[in-house]
Amino acid sequence: MNKSAILHIPQSQYAFPNSVNSMTIRLRAAIGDLTACILYIGDRACTKSPVQFSPLPMKPVARDELFEYYEAVFEVPFNRVCYYFRLESGEEWTYYYADRFQSELPDILLEGRVIEGRSEYYQYPYILRDEIPDVPEWFKNSVVYNIFPDSFATGKESLTIQEKQIPLEDGTQSKALLGGTIRGILENVGYIKEMGFNCIYLNPIFTAGEYHKYDLLDYYHIDPCFGSDEDFKELVNEVHKNDMHIIIDGVFNHCSWYFFAFEDVIRNGETSKYKDWFYKLNYPVNRPEYGREPDYACFAYERKMPKLNTSNKEVQEYFTGVCRYWLREYKVDGWRLDVANEVSRDFWRAFRMAAKEENPQAVLIGEVWENAEEWLKGDAFDSTMNYDFRKYCREYFAFGNMDAFDFAGAVSNMMLRYPINIALGQLNLLDTHDVPRFLSLCKGDIRRWKLAFILLMLFPGVPSLFYGDEKKIEGISEPEYRSPMPWQSKDRELEEFIKKILDIRKEFISVESSYEVLQADKESGLYSFIRAGVKGRLLVCLNARDGEERAEVPERKEILLEESVVGSGNQYIRISDFGFGIYVID
Amino acid sequence: MNKSAILHIPQSQYAFPNSVNSMTIRLRAAIGDLTACILYIGDRACTKSPVQFSPLPMKPVARDELFEYYEAVFEVPFNRVCYYFRLESGEEWTYYYADRFQSELPDILLEGRVIEGRSEYYQYPYILRDEIPDVPEWFKNSVVYNIFPDSFATGKESLTIQEKQIPLEDGTQSKALLGGTIRGILENVGYIKEMGFNCIYLNPIFTAGEYHKYDLLDYYHIDPCFGSDEDFKELVNEVHKNDMHIIIDGVFNHCSWYFFAFEDVIRNGETSKYKDWFYKLNYPVNRPEYGREPDYACFAYERKMPKLNTSNKEVQEYFTGVCRYWLREYKVDGWRLDVANEVSRDFWRAFRMAAKEENPQAVLIGEVWENAEEWLKGDAFDSTMNYDFRKYCREYFAFGNMDAFDFAGAVSNMMLRYPINIALGQLNLLDTHDVPRFLSLCKGDIRRWKLAFILLMLFPGVPSLFYGDEKKIEGISEPEYRSPMPWQSKDRELEEFIKKILDIRKEFISVESSYEVLQADKESGLYSFIRAGVKGRLLVCLNARDGEERAEVPERKEILLEESVVGSGNQYIRISDFGFGIYVID
Repeated sequence: MNKSAILHIPQSQYAFPNSVNSMTIRLRAAIGDLTACILYIGDRACTKSPVQFSPLPMKPVARDELFEYYEAVFEVPFNRVCYYFRLESGEEWTYYYADRFQSELPDILLEGRVIEGRSEYYQYPYILRDEIPDVPEWFKNSVVYNIFPDSFATGKESLTIQEKQIPLEDGTQSKALLGGTIRGILENVGYIKEMGFNCIYLNPIFTAGEYHKYDLLDYYHIDPCFGSDEDFKELVNEVHKNDMHIIIDGVFNHCSWYFFAFEDVIRNGETSKYKDWFYKLNYPVNRPEYGREPDYACFAYERKMPKLNTSNKEVQEYFTGVCRYWLREYKVDGWRLDVANEVSRDFWRAFRMAAKEENPQAVLIGEVWENAEEWLKGDAFDSTMNYDFRKYCREYFAFGNMDAFDFAGAVSNMMLRYPINIALGQLNLLDTHDVPRFLSLCKGDIRRWKLAFILLMLFPGVPSLFYGDEKKIEGISEPEYRSPMPWQSKDRELEEFIKKILDIRKEFISVESSYEVLQADKESGLYSFIRAGVKGRLLVCLNARDGEERAEVPERKEILLEESVVGSGNQYIRISDFGFGIYVID
Repeated sequence: MNKSAILHIPQSQYAFPNSVNSMTIRLRAAIGDLTACILYIGDRACTKSPVQFSPLPMKPVARDELFEYYEAVFEVPFNRVCYYFRLESGEEWTYYYADRFQSELPDILLEGRVIEGRSEYYQYPYILRDEIPDVPEWFKNSVVYNIFPDSFATGKESLTIQEKQIPLEDGTQSKALLGGTIRGILENVGYIKEMGFNCIYLNPIFTAGEYHKYDLLDYYHIDPCFGSDEDFKELVNEVHKNDMHIIIDGVFNHCSWYFFAFEDVIRNGETSKYKDWFYKLNYPVNRPEYGREPDYACFAYERKMPKLNTSNKEVQEYFTGVCRYWLREYKVDGWRLDVANEVSRDFWRAFRMAAKEENPQAVLIGEVWENAEEWLKGDAFDSTMNYDFRKYCREYFAFGNMDAFDFAGAVSNMMLRYPINIALGQLNLLDTHDVPRFLSLCKGDIRRWKLAFILLMLFPGVPSLFYGDEKKIEGISEPEYRSPMPWQSKDRELEEFIKKILDIRKEFISVESSYEVLQADKESGLYSFIRAGVKGRLLVCLNARDGEERAEVPERKEILLEESVVGSGNQYIRISDFGFGIYVID
């Protein structure tokens, strides 16, 4: 047995409750190593000694190059669980508990009695209802359209490009590069809904200096370049009237160097009552010229964006106020939170508490690019922006430098790194305002883009599309990938394609749909998976290679969509370069 | 390379800050597998692209049967770190980042420019001062004497045993089995200090029914069997006058079924304003007879101890009030927290915030028997009761069913499962009021007990001794192991031994002392380690076997204490059955 590959982490994505009376427990082993993996579950407060255990065979649910992942989902009649594993590899076997391989259970007998040992099993101490990992239900059912406001629209399917510089009361100015407006968004809610989206996520809209609005001046008003507070209220109404949701972008890691609190520090130096709102101040604090070292900590090295001291209780109070205001007064449905992983955990705890008090169904999405397990434990975010989804799609679909086996392993692993409900609430994406357009990574090859898009929409999780992807916007550097929405384009190929795929999603996939890899071999480009959903089983076959692949298709009942399917036989089809087939099967 | 054995977990005990400008990063590999393990550190906001990295060779710091643990402790000029590993095993090498083995770094070049990739390195997003793992400094320097009040004393080195039943105002009664008092403890502060302890931890002292006082009736008063509130105030004063600290036991998972809030539920049923203070109520709620199913959730199956709903904000407020009261009014130095892992995390967050507001130096010790990593992240406890220390001592010293290699591996592993400062604040122990006396596990063999005691006191962490161990109390079941303190005993062997060992601890060991295994071979009973401390290097050699062992002793400068050392030669000594030697070496 390859013992060094065995991994189980209590109270993590390897052991979590799904309800007060059910749990999921997982164990990782080397691929192909175990011949049996049995979970034994007991009541940690069992009145009998030793504790009575029930065996439960664990099933392999995923595998990658190195590992196989075993899982058991089970009901428990008690709220407190102790457990251990029995692992077998051919003739060899071992118990596994407390991170140790043992040939005996831990019960210590002395003078014929069990005197101790039960505390040495793995423990899930007590299932508390409010600690069951979950995400607002509506969000798990969302399909998100992400808008960068400056670039999007000024009217119905139109953008009149206009660079703007609007003077503000405090003497500074708000800038626009392309001139998109809130009203422009409002007039295109129908366009967005028509494609099949039911949620809009807006990049920042509050008063700020630069066109991107990440250098905030006033957290309580809509930027004048974008319109008025009233415009935004109308937009939210329009969105809700259409049974859609709206999420706004919160930038609390840093502010503009003209933000009132920072202005006060510049003016009053050490006597400023806001001096503890910032980091590493050297007095007198100035706004340095380009290339000069600032007298304060910044976001990255952006001197115009001083970093806020989010550990400070006053700062926490100010911004939880902001949080409450937009949820309460404008009825937004949630926040996407910028540079979330550089902000104090206590800040997010206070923020979350405030948000959920205003609206228990409000969603909080952290900008965390890496594995975000630490941030998804119920005290910070519900969801994070899943850039790893993009990463694997880039490697598999765009660059073609990963085979189907590794790809399937990578995305399964991505699912397993969080508890189930949390994984189902991840914001999967192909591109955003911060990265090159996915179509550019595909070097403009629409076929590759489509495959990734199919996966985005039919894979477990909450898909998010960046505005204009449907109009084939390309761009590898800023502001290129924030190009004006090409409303004038007559090419509706992708819009129609998106609509078809979203219709399939709507009809065949629900939050409860299972996900199972059917085909994903080494050296192959053919990756297929089944989602057992609301209406039978949906089979999705994707050929990410420049060459023909053969895909197993058991008991085809209905062909939903195909491209480049060049032949078929008994229980298989043949798909040529970058084609796909989507079927209902028995 | 055994890739399946490689483990690194970002933002965990594998990657944590020690100060705003220093970090520790660890990686686990299969034992004997790597020929080089190099950490590359960069500034995640680096203005150059690709990010500039500096290499840092990692050192193996511990090993056990399966694994070798590599570590690097380093200064960082920036607060935000990205990093990756380069692993070598002979000719084979790989990069390791984002939990993937790669032959290339993640930077993606397109048209000659790096367009993305830096987010794919491992990240420590931002070192925030208030999130650096730590424990109050005084606590890390503590040597704790744990008293079970009912059993301890009624006067100076005396206990007049008296069973008591004192009627309380609400018609219930408080019971005592042996009759120990607060005044009894007060009169023996000198006795405790004399042995070398500088901290007293008391099992529950508030008004409760049973002699153990875990079924609480009144969280605001000292139990009348133990004395008065005034007595306790005097005790705290006496302790502080002696430059010692005092920690009390908080029982917030459950209360007595006569606690006022539960009484109200019984009386008023569904109209009780305390009905949400408890779980799973079935009305009408009664106090069931023995053997009958209660109409409410209990601690374990103890019908007399209804479980409190610690997720409830009102419950949190009530008990944070209790927390503040004893810290503020009585100046206790901290809380040991009963059944801590079954209580809501939000409860502990509120509790911690209150405690640290009253006294930032107050210590919070959770009763968590298993790996407590999840509870030691800065939002719950500073420390936990380290029963694993006992477990390994039981196996190695008491039962002799573990060899020195496995033992050294197990205790190193125990150290590495938390960030350094947190490991140094763990409450190491051999026994408590909840388990058989360690001497009984040793079947009365004082020699084995002494070896374990030496380790308890000279190993990194905060040692805790249960009252009466120094007087050779034995017992394998309750209330046996809570036997009356045998003040009458003339046998002072262990008291003197304890004093000697604590003198050595005081003179040669500080919080900063390193810990390094010198000798711990497979099949051997000889385990020795070095603590490079305040005054040179302390070498501790322990022979846990019934047979002679040879221990390396380089450059002996001073013999501090020896037992059963039967010979010596050039750079070695010979130790017979269960003997030891403690030396200062060069």
